[in-house]
Amino acid sequence: MSKDFQPTPEFALELDAQDKLASFREAFVVTDPDLIYLDGNSLGRLPKAAIARAKQIVEEEWGRDLIRSWNKGWWESPARVGEKIAKLVGAATGQVIVSDTTSINLFKLVMAALALHPEKKRIITDTMNFPSDLYILQGCVQLLGNRHEIIRIDSNDEGVTPDLAALEKAINEDTALVTLSHVLFKSGYLYDMKQITEMAHRKGALVIWDLSHSVGAVPIALDDCNADLAIGCTYKYLNGGPGAPAFLYVKKSMQEKLSSPIWGWWGQDQPFAFGLDYSPAPGATRFLIGSQPIIGSLTMEAALEPLLDAGMDSLRAKSILMTDYAAFLTENLLAPFGFSLGSPRDSARRGSHISIRHPEGYRINRALIEEMNVIPDFREPDNLRLGFAPLYLSFREVWEGFDRIRRVMEEKRYEKYPKQRLTVT
Amino acid sequence: MSKDFQPTPEFALELDAQDKLASFREAFVVTDPDLIYLDGNSLGRLPKAAIARAKQIVEEEWGRDLIRSWNKGWWESPARVGEKIAKLVGAATGQVIVSDTTSINLFKLVMAALALHPEKKRIITDTMNFPSDLYILQGCVQLLGNRHEIIRIDSNDEGVTPDLAALEKAINEDTALVTLSHVLFKSGYLYDMKQITEMAHRKGALVIWDLSHSVGAVPIALDDCNADLAIGCTYKYLNGGPGAPAFLYVKKSMQEKLSSPIWGWWGQDQPFAFGLDYSPAPGATRFLIGSQPIIGSLTMEAALEPLLDAGMDSLRAKSILMTDYAAFLTENLLAPFGFSLGSPRDSARRGSHISIRHPEGYRINRALIEEMNVIPDFREPDNLRLGFAPLYLSFREVWEGFDRIRRVMEEKRYEKYPKQRLTVT
Repeated sequence: MSKDFQPTPEFALELDAQDKLASFREAFVVTDPDLIYLDGNSLGRLPKAAIARAKQIVEEEWGRDLIRSWNKGWWESPARVGEKIAKLVGAATGQVIVSDTTSINLFKLVMAALALHPEKKRIITDTMNFPSDLYILQGCVQLLGNRHEIIRIDSNDEGVTPDLAALEKAINEDTALVTLSHVLFKSGYLYDMKQITEMAHRKGALVIWDLSHSVGAVPIALDDCNADLAIGCTYKYLNGGPGAPAFLYVKKSMQEKLSSPIWGWWGQDQPFAFGLDYSPAPGATRFLIGSQPIIGSLTMEAALEPLLDAGMDSLRAKSILMTDYAAFLTENLLAPFGFSLGSPRDSARRGSHISIRHPEGYRINRALIEEMNVIPDFREPDNLRLGFAPLYLSFREVWEGFDRIRRVMEEKRYEKYPKQRLTVT
Repeated sequence: MSKDFQPTPEFALELDAQDKLASFREAFVVTDPDLIYLDGNSLGRLPKAAIARAKQIVEEEWGRDLIRSWNKGWWESPARVGEKIAKLVGAATGQVIVSDTTSINLFKLVMAALALHPEKKRIITDTMNFPSDLYILQGCVQLLGNRHEIIRIDSNDEGVTPDLAALEKAINEDTALVTLSHVLFKSGYLYDMKQITEMAHRKGALVIWDLSHSVGAVPIALDDCNADLAIGCTYKYLNGGPGAPAFLYVKKSMQEKLSSPIWGWWGQDQPFAFGLDYSPAPGATRFLIGSQPIIGSLTMEAALEPLLDAGMDSLRAKSILMTDYAAFLTENLLAPFGFSLGSPRDSARRGSHISIRHPEGYRINRALIEEMNVIPDFREPDNLRLGFAPLYLSFREVWEGFDRIRRVMEEKRYEKYPKQRLTVT
């Protein structure tokens, strides 16, 4: 972290003046310039290009062209949009498809991976993984007759950093699968994909990476890391829109060895022959199931454009500067009020969000949303989570966000809120 | 079939003049009044209400309100939209949810149903079922270790009418599940839901109904038929838009006995507690998995409105008149050119589409689309499939569609097209 950072609005404006990505903000809808939106890691802002595209899909492709649109780009869209995402995750052609939801894609790949080595009984994950991924694993184990053991690696530092020594120790010859979130949803810890993948491969285990909190936030090199399988969502840093469909990656060399647990028409070899018996399509296509949500999928495709234009290396550089600045502000502006950093200090091991911890995190979050026009989010037990989407966020906004948190603390604005959990955040 | 039908445009206009639903056409976008769209059974037309709603979801709910919209109706939408569909399928509250795709929902319910009686080994379906449903069944059987036998009932009349005697004979005490399309996708045959459900229940078998080709086309009474489980899609007669999410129905009394094979965050008891262990939500909610496609789902919700306003009984009356008239025109206008009806003559056993068969069906379909501004579709081996969406189709259009088919035959326009299958229709 640079010692030259300053906790002043002037300094933030200086950083903005030097920001080569600053103009990308123009590509997004900002209806309320006063709003400090620190939740782009949960739902990305609306790219202007998506508005025109959504209108076109609805009015022209559906309304005017009707069923003919299936022949004009709809049917091929899972592969076509997949190739655009492939550029963001370091995947050569023919390995990424867009389909269904993150959880369903995880289900497909877990089941497919476990079927490859039915004699291996161990599945490794961590306690910091997004709970939905753990639920999917538990469901798969149940479905397979409770023959597998799920081992959850913990941390030594209250959930910030996974215990890598324990992880290495846990992966043994009986390990079928290691499945981890590339960036942890609370602390923002960024696993070393290459290192962990090699660690698993040494023992003959496969790895599934959940890229939901890393795609669009950090450069990803699936092919270079020799990754096996991956999944991810598109509504966070990819700005694909609420519930936009997810994606999955299957390494070329594994595709013909794997079978989807859900045999779908879209994953059938010759879908329009309407044959009565399933035969899997070649390649990753076999992991498609049924009709994809075309409006959401094609709107998401358009939404990817500014991100693809900016490029992941530039985005990563800005993201690191932002999270470094945020860590600096946590220590210089907020530590006196009892905040501590709940994220790695080393930017090389951090995604594009940080958590700042405070025993009153829940009430502080509510005060920020309801009184200060700041949107972070809260994650149990004490994490105020702040996302920094480098594509459209300015350093002035980072400064302003922290200064408003400071005001909430100074004016004890949080005290009027009840001590209870939000039902939905 | 009324003997008073006339094969004239004047007669069709008379029927239109008496059509109490005629004004509903105004609720839909019609960019090309010359187009005879007979594929509303595959992709329904665009309701005008959906345009405004899609714009609102994108620009206001996503663009302006951002993550806050999850608390303003997004999170609850699977249940809320489910309740609207429940009215169309005769289901009391708390039994229908919107989620994922038809195939994924079928997978969930097949796996859940088979888990209830693991000792029973027989699954019954028919050869006229939509192939994707058969693929899902085959995948489930494979996943469960090939312990089940899938029996496919055939027809005695080249795929028009299922052999009900064979069906009854096939359902025995070893039958875990009967799963059928309520309306068959080629012939339009409409199963008697009550009769078949009772037939299955007498032997202790469960039934899953696929309502994709019946919902919005014929009145459905799931509760009254004592149905167990059902699935369906929303982009055909429900006009929900391309790839709009599907729905599922689970009878109230069965909900707590069933477990989803895919354990998802949205189906978790307390999703925002972020607990590490899955515990199913009460009711049908447990069959939700991950984030739903909000743009598509809420656009579909708006698209349902004209259908709900019209009411299924009025729609059914018009639909029967239309398919009766279409059968009459097939026999009076097209039979001389070698067409025969590939659908039941009895309207009580017919959905809202018919197939007309001709050895040159594939080439005739192409000529209609490419030269005549008529959109039917073609289904192997010789079915020209004609869908009659009573909500927006006029009798004049039915007449005009048949008259253009007649012209294609008279002028032998189809002969210039190659004898091969479309890759995508």
